[in-house]
Amino acid sequence: MKNEQILLKSRPEGTPAEDNFEIRETEVPELKEGQVLIQSLYISVDPYMRGRMSTAKSYIEPFKVDEVISGGVVGEVVESKSDKLKAGDKVTGMLGWQRYNAMDASQIRKVDEQLAPLSAYLGILGTTGLTAYFGLLDIGQPKEGETVVISGAAGAVGMAVGQIAKMKGTRVVGIAGSDKKTEYLEKELGFDATINYKTTENIYKSVKKACPNGVDVYFDNVGGPISDAVTSLLNDFARVPVCGAISSYNITSLSEDMGPRIQPKLIKTRALMKGFIVSDYAPRFKEAARDLGQWLSEGKLKYEETIVEGFENVPQAFIGLFKGENLGKQIVKINQE
Amino acid sequence: MKNEQILLKSRPEGTPAEDNFEIRETEVPELKEGQVLIQSLYISVDPYMRGRMSTAKSYIEPFKVDEVISGGVVGEVVESKSDKLKAGDKVTGMLGWQRYNAMDASQIRKVDEQLAPLSAYLGILGTTGLTAYFGLLDIGQPKEGETVVISGAAGAVGMAVGQIAKMKGTRVVGIAGSDKKTEYLEKELGFDATINYKTTENIYKSVKKACPNGVDVYFDNVGGPISDAVTSLLNDFARVPVCGAISSYNITSLSEDMGPRIQPKLIKTRALMKGFIVSDYAPRFKEAARDLGQWLSEGKLKYEETIVEGFENVPQAFIGLFKGENLGKQIVKINQE
Repeated sequence: MKNEQILLKSRPEGTPAEDNFEIRETEVPELKEGQVLIQSLYISVDPYMRGRMSTAKSYIEPFKVDEVISGGVVGEVVESKSDKLKAGDKVTGMLGWQRYNAMDASQIRKVDEQLAPLSAYLGILGTTGLTAYFGLLDIGQPKEGETVVISGAAGAVGMAVGQIAKMKGTRVVGIAGSDKKTEYLEKELGFDATINYKTTENIYKSVKKACPNGVDVYFDNVGGPISDAVTSLLNDFARVPVCGAISSYNITSLSEDMGPRIQPKLIKTRALMKGFIVSDYAPRFKEAARDLGQWLSEGKLKYEETIVEGFENVPQAFIGLFKGENLGKQIVKINQE
Repeated sequence: MKNEQILLKSRPEGTPAEDNFEIRETEVPELKEGQVLIQSLYISVDPYMRGRMSTAKSYIEPFKVDEVISGGVVGEVVESKSDKLKAGDKVTGMLGWQRYNAMDASQIRKVDEQLAPLSAYLGILGTTGLTAYFGLLDIGQPKEGETVVISGAAGAVGMAVGQIAKMKGTRVVGIAGSDKKTEYLEKELGFDATINYKTTENIYKSVKKACPNGVDVYFDNVGGPISDAVTSLLNDFARVPVCGAISSYNITSLSEDMGPRIQPKLIKTRALMKGFIVSDYAPRFKEAARDLGQWLSEGKLKYEETIVEGFENVPQAFIGLFKGENLGKQIVKINQE
């Protein structure tokens, strides 16, 4: 039994490339008391991880060069030195990008394969769903009859936001990067209107047309010129949960991310903008997981996954996020050898 | 007895100029039942009024060309057809820029000349004080030991914000436009550090030096490059009450007000930015007025006024705001003829 792990070989400049990563064969780690050995089944790749590949100050430590990258993983316990978990248990947590992780049982949580497919715990029942839930409901606070605009709407978070916003009785407008995506959002998820930002001639006019009553909540996954357009259409007392800024993640110089300053608009509308990350809400995860699980079981919440197979394809799946290749949650399924 | 009034003759392009205004002699208005005739004693000129001179959508109606401009005024009732007020009462409200206003008694409020000089009701006991109070305490929520940065710190609102922030046990850093102003803030109001943005070589470095522990609350009166610098130094979970953006008020094209987009910083720090105007807090004015009055009577809250005399000088006093001529609240004292 051999382990394989993916290391950050060098920090990306601009868009990450294959040569920023290295796959290395190594020994399966030894277990200490209280630990379990987890074989990876599904690995999550997420846009926020780009931030950790830089040295810039942020809410979590940067990855170190020549060390294993870590993120959301679902796996199976194959060996246990803890009385809390036994071989065969399915678990999830923040684990290394490797075939085998040795972890303290307290750092991971068991998941229920009966409630949902295992990969869902990396998405709608995991960070994705929680991010959508808290960003929309805690910061966005949508009210019946309001208009909610979502950028990156065909990403995993965006899809969940749109469906929850629909449950709250709002008009939901999604912005995404292909006709296939916008069609999916309208036909499968019931979005009221969508915009393909890659083909529209004028994003401002498109948003304005899609939002005849203006924008009350803007769930921002992208930043950049799309957000310039949407924020210019904010209504009085609008709320803007700032969840992601994928358009800026690969920018190497601050001067490349310039746009109209937001302050005058915030004053005129008395709008609120707030950045957040899901871990800020850890004390309330239970409440959210209960709601998400119930909506899922009632069929009110659908989710989509783009699954790539093969441990060696994790870096490529990550890089693909920045090309907008994924519909919904991008996951890598690890084939067992 | 003749009335005089100041009309908006034309909409300013860029910085307002004398020829945007016209003084016209007219009749003293006739009173209807329930109204009182008020002779203006003090007229307030405020940066936000520049917004009303444009046609752009905002939180209040634009002024109309060829109509009387209105704003905060303190005056004396000289004739009454209301049982709520009598001749000799001193009152304040949103009145026209004219020597005599006829107003429903319900639209104005009586003030107490014993508690504070009349002009204070246009400043520290009026909109100015309330703006500082709610912006800082409701949105900024300063906690003991935190660092509060204030731009436009030597303006009337900025001074009040700094003193209230000091009462809350914070480190207070003020940014202003002259050594006379920064000296006043440090020596008279007890600011911990100040920056003269006109003479500093690098505003970012100056703010960084003045805030060794970063910025927890940024009370923003100015927008523009100063705010770019301060917001780049926000701490985790910082709060930014966006009160004014005087640097952009005279800009005629959106493309002149470009800066680094704020979204990535908001995500990294989970900071909150919120625009506000004081009238949003009308239901809580009583609570604030009580606190402000008490602080004033205890000597904890000082205020400064720049008083110009003469009705005919109202436009010039307003224009002077954009040159940073005022220390504290800019007021025009109306000489009685």
